[in-house]
Amino acid sequence: MTEIPRLWTFSASPFAGKARVAFTEKNVEVELHEIHPGNRPPRLRELTPIGRVPVLETPSGVAIFESSVICQWLEDTHPEPPLWPADPDLRGWARGWTKWIDDHLVANYFLGMRKLAFGRAPDDPEDITEQLHAKLIKRLATIEPVLAVHDGPWLCGEEFTFADISGMPVAARLPVWTPHLTDQLEPYPNVRAWFAALQDRPSIAALDHKGDPVHGAEGPLLVS
Amino acid sequence: MTEIPRLWTFSASPFAGKARVAFTEKNVEVELHEIHPGNRPPRLRELTPIGRVPVLETPSGVAIFESSVICQWLEDTHPEPPLWPADPDLRGWARGWTKWIDDHLVANYFLGMRKLAFGRAPDDPEDITEQLHAKLIKRLATIEPVLAVHDGPWLCGEEFTFADISGMPVAARLPVWTPHLTDQLEPYPNVRAWFAALQDRPSIAALDHKGDPVHGAEGPLLVS
Repeated sequence: MTEIPRLWTFSASPFAGKARVAFTEKNVEVELHEIHPGNRPPRLRELTPIGRVPVLETPSGVAIFESSVICQWLEDTHPEPPLWPADPDLRGWARGWTKWIDDHLVANYFLGMRKLAFGRAPDDPEDITEQLHAKLIKRLATIEPVLAVHDGPWLCGEEFTFADISGMPVAARLPVWTPHLTDQLEPYPNVRAWFAALQDRPSIAALDHKGDPVHGAEGPLLVS
Repeated sequence: MTEIPRLWTFSASPFAGKARVAFTEKNVEVELHEIHPGNRPPRLRELTPIGRVPVLETPSGVAIFESSVICQWLEDTHPEPPLWPADPDLRGWARGWTKWIDDHLVANYFLGMRKLAFGRAPDDPEDITEQLHAKLIKRLATIEPVLAVHDGPWLCGEEFTFADISGMPVAARLPVWTPHLTDQLEPYPNVRAWFAALQDRPSIAALDHKGDPVHGAEGPLLVS
């Protein structure tokens, strides 16, 4: 039980990053508990069946897992500023694309990085990271025209939404961790403009701010 | 453009089934367009980047994909009866478990069935269906105590929610398609009671009602 919400996080996790950026955009105070995935605290397993961050402990002691669910909890409990469009059709459209961005852009990029940092699975091909990153690049052709539907700078137009927050981890990390991939963004001007707008968003700084170490957080972090 | 929402569906798809049950529970009229995944209409590709059902075309012509997103659109546009708990903490808890049920129970079961019906991938082991179904059974140990948190008959207690609708496809299909698995539910009385309550829910009948065939819907259906 905490007075303010407590977010279990790992600084290099894109989905924990998404939740942290959402708290910053909502201007809601949150207590960060940094863990290391190589040494997960037993308490984390009690809070979530998947044992992964992010997990939110609400002030009344309820554990909420999944980054998109945590974002929606924030929207429900702190409606201002809204991070979903007011129109339910546009909101549904944006929610579908948010899931697509999570599953096809963010997951491919960060799974590739995780395998680079923590090692491949026994049956992974040697070039698994390159394969996953090639998949991410291939998927950019799908999002490129979608970014033009509402005329930018954000996916829903003038309004910054959770859909943009979903793209933020790739926008922030790709040029820093994998500068060799930046040339491959060349054929996608809308993606480049979107990534640039995301990089300029002040809340992105939160991604590089670690929380307080808790039991089990020892060991080197991927990003320091 | 339609006067009423149009749902692209496939009668054997668990996620399309989830969306259809949600429409029934909300008592909202919907035009069903049945497709066959072996022969997807080109129009489906225009509506969704993943080319999969369910996809909803709203009366104003917006395409919304992902079953949970379609459910949320229904909740936003037709709030009565509510299918999420009023309390935001409990709602967040239920939303996290809904995603877990989709990813760990429904996906394992139906991916196993899909491989049985439409064939294995070249690098799948011979017993891939059995492996996936064993995973489903193993995961029941996780949901068993969760079903006791709010004292039933539903995941959130007295209130039937979208979290229960997520479990419905497995509850409905498992005893019919794979009766040999029912013995394996024995150690999980809460799961058995939940599945039984779901099987008795009138909206489940909607799962066996096909929509109107559209171009590309020819060919045998897994369930007729």
